[in-house]
Amino acid sequence: MIAMRKIFDVILSRNPEKGERFLKELEGKTPLFVCTIGTTDTAKIPNLSIAGENPDLTDYTPPADAEFLVLGSCKSIPGVPITPDGIPTPGLTTRAALRLSGIPVVVASGGLRIKPQIPFIELGGEQGRDIRAGKALSNAGEVYDRAFLMGENLGKSASYLVVGESVPAGTTTALGVLLAMGVPAENKVSSSMPLNPHNLKMDTVKAGMTAAGIEFGSLKNDPLKAASCLGDPMMPAAAGLIAGAASKVPVIMAGGTQMGAVLAIVGRLKGDVTENLAIGTTRWIVEDKKSDLNGIVSCIADIPVLAADLDYSESKYPGLRAYEQGIAKEGVGCGGVSIAAMAMSKGSITKDGILRAIESEYEKLRS
Amino acid sequence: MIAMRKIFDVILSRNPEKGERFLKELEGKTPLFVCTIGTTDTAKIPNLSIAGENPDLTDYTPPADAEFLVLGSCKSIPGVPITPDGIPTPGLTTRAALRLSGIPVVVASGGLRIKPQIPFIELGGEQGRDIRAGKALSNAGEVYDRAFLMGENLGKSASYLVVGESVPAGTTTALGVLLAMGVPAENKVSSSMPLNPHNLKMDTVKAGMTAAGIEFGSLKNDPLKAASCLGDPMMPAAAGLIAGAASKVPVIMAGGTQMGAVLAIVGRLKGDVTENLAIGTTRWIVEDKKSDLNGIVSCIADIPVLAADLDYSESKYPGLRAYEQGIAKEGVGCGGVSIAAMAMSKGSITKDGILRAIESEYEKLRS
Repeated sequence: MIAMRKIFDVILSRNPEKGERFLKELEGKTPLFVCTIGTTDTAKIPNLSIAGENPDLTDYTPPADAEFLVLGSCKSIPGVPITPDGIPTPGLTTRAALRLSGIPVVVASGGLRIKPQIPFIELGGEQGRDIRAGKALSNAGEVYDRAFLMGENLGKSASYLVVGESVPAGTTTALGVLLAMGVPAENKVSSSMPLNPHNLKMDTVKAGMTAAGIEFGSLKNDPLKAASCLGDPMMPAAAGLIAGAASKVPVIMAGGTQMGAVLAIVGRLKGDVTENLAIGTTRWIVEDKKSDLNGIVSCIADIPVLAADLDYSESKYPGLRAYEQGIAKEGVGCGGVSIAAMAMSKGSITKDGILRAIESEYEKLRS
Repeated sequence: MIAMRKIFDVILSRNPEKGERFLKELEGKTPLFVCTIGTTDTAKIPNLSIAGENPDLTDYTPPADAEFLVLGSCKSIPGVPITPDGIPTPGLTTRAALRLSGIPVVVASGGLRIKPQIPFIELGGEQGRDIRAGKALSNAGEVYDRAFLMGENLGKSASYLVVGESVPAGTTTALGVLLAMGVPAENKVSSSMPLNPHNLKMDTVKAGMTAAGIEFGSLKNDPLKAASCLGDPMMPAAAGLIAGAASKVPVIMAGGTQMGAVLAIVGRLKGDVTENLAIGTTRWIVEDKKSDLNGIVSCIADIPVLAADLDYSESKYPGLRAYEQGIAKEGVGCGGVSIAAMAMSKGSITKDGILRAIESEYEKLRS
């Protein structure tokens, strides 16, 4: 294995030359982080998502993540987003990086059953439906247009944007949109679980494709139709925000393989802005043997993939060390925000500094 | 009458030394304009508001203004916000100044019956009730807290903020909150009509004070209670946004005497940020003989009042010349945004340039 190049604690995982230039441009600058959230009934399919054991809980995870990011505690659920065995949401990493750096955050809703009890950007979307029926979203075009307007305006105001996501079952819907658009993503999307249920994901997507009369690549030129049939509410929201902002300033697409689907939408609707884009994720994603983010990106656009070299193996808490076993891996923009914090501080915020900040937040959660 | 000092086409109407320093700090910088909108059943009291002849229309004016700002056209109403005799919304001036300067805009809802069909910041508020019952708002504290969080985050991202308003009957609710907080505002609030119905406003407020058991000044130390009894949904939203942002960066409070009530709330809840505040309004407000913005401000905090020296007397359109007869005067942040455009361009955007841009937009509206 070739040692990957790093700048600060950021791995230049794909297209390192462009990645280095992209990162240089962000040095010392304060971005705005927009966390785009959505929920979908697809997450209620048993065994698809970590949260699937308690299906209704998936409606609460994104608003709770958003509240935790902004407030440091949740209002929509009792307690905090941490499993009974102590594994915390990736949002803990995001919040730690935001607080270390002072990077501001706003939340945008692409469509939710439960609204977060914090200020948020309303984009007019609705909760997503189970994609097996092939009719996931009812107004993806309208949400994309509204998000584009908001992205344009935020892009005129901020130095650059980091756009992240929280949506349960999001890798399954990503697989659906990627396949509909002709990106060979089978067995390539990631999972928040160590054992990635690729077959179940594929069966779910195939049911939706059949129901909607879609074949591999048949919606190559109609990304919003692909999202309407097989996607989730985060997608048109994030795609619009990213496309609108990237027409003005650089944008870090903060996420794993889910951002592959968003990139496919942006690349088709607003291909001229991809020069202003990089994906920002975590080491756990780019080193994952059971998924292939770089392979997905390579089929769409020649943009850099940057990965925060987060490493929790030396943490004093088992709940954090679990990340090294492939649990969670990414989400709530944790990789992209960590990268932005490192770039803003010109490297004085390190992976060790972020881990210490996480442990300090984690102690508060457990007490 | 002493000639008032000007910088660019900005009149230093109150506290000129501080106003000059404030304006210097903004030179060359791009702000974010946040237009805070709300609706209240108070606007349905006959003869109180220009829109009172068609009461239900007042529910549509703020969302339509917001849509026009962002899109250049409306979705919530047919046509555009212009009276049958051709007098356009002050939002036309705002949009012209935004487009000339490239200043970005986002819309925030403090509480609406009709949601705008554009992206907007949701702050969890509800449509306001008729203040004659003394129970105007149900969750002003929650809206203020959420708006404060959003203001803090936007303030970390933008160079500075301009916060404007659109809420019908807003000067009557301003009178109510000011009196409840002990500011002698009787006969001092402005009107969008040439004949200011001061007696009707006072009767409306007195009914609300009686119903709520409030006397002049009895809520001096409880501004959110004052807003809850006699205010409108714009107030806690704008106050929170302003207080949160002004803890980081300068903020232009873009409006007339309605911003007096917002200033009273901010001054009491977060007095330390008033050093970062100025009111930005229009010449029509500061020269109005039937209201007294400077007098209201002087009772609250020693902040500058800046006024865009807009002058439509030479316009080729009667609908714009009508502004010189005291119609409209202010609203949708038109004064503050014009000031910000002038400061951003270091004076190369002038009142004449803004008028030409308005006339060009106006022609499109009429065609």
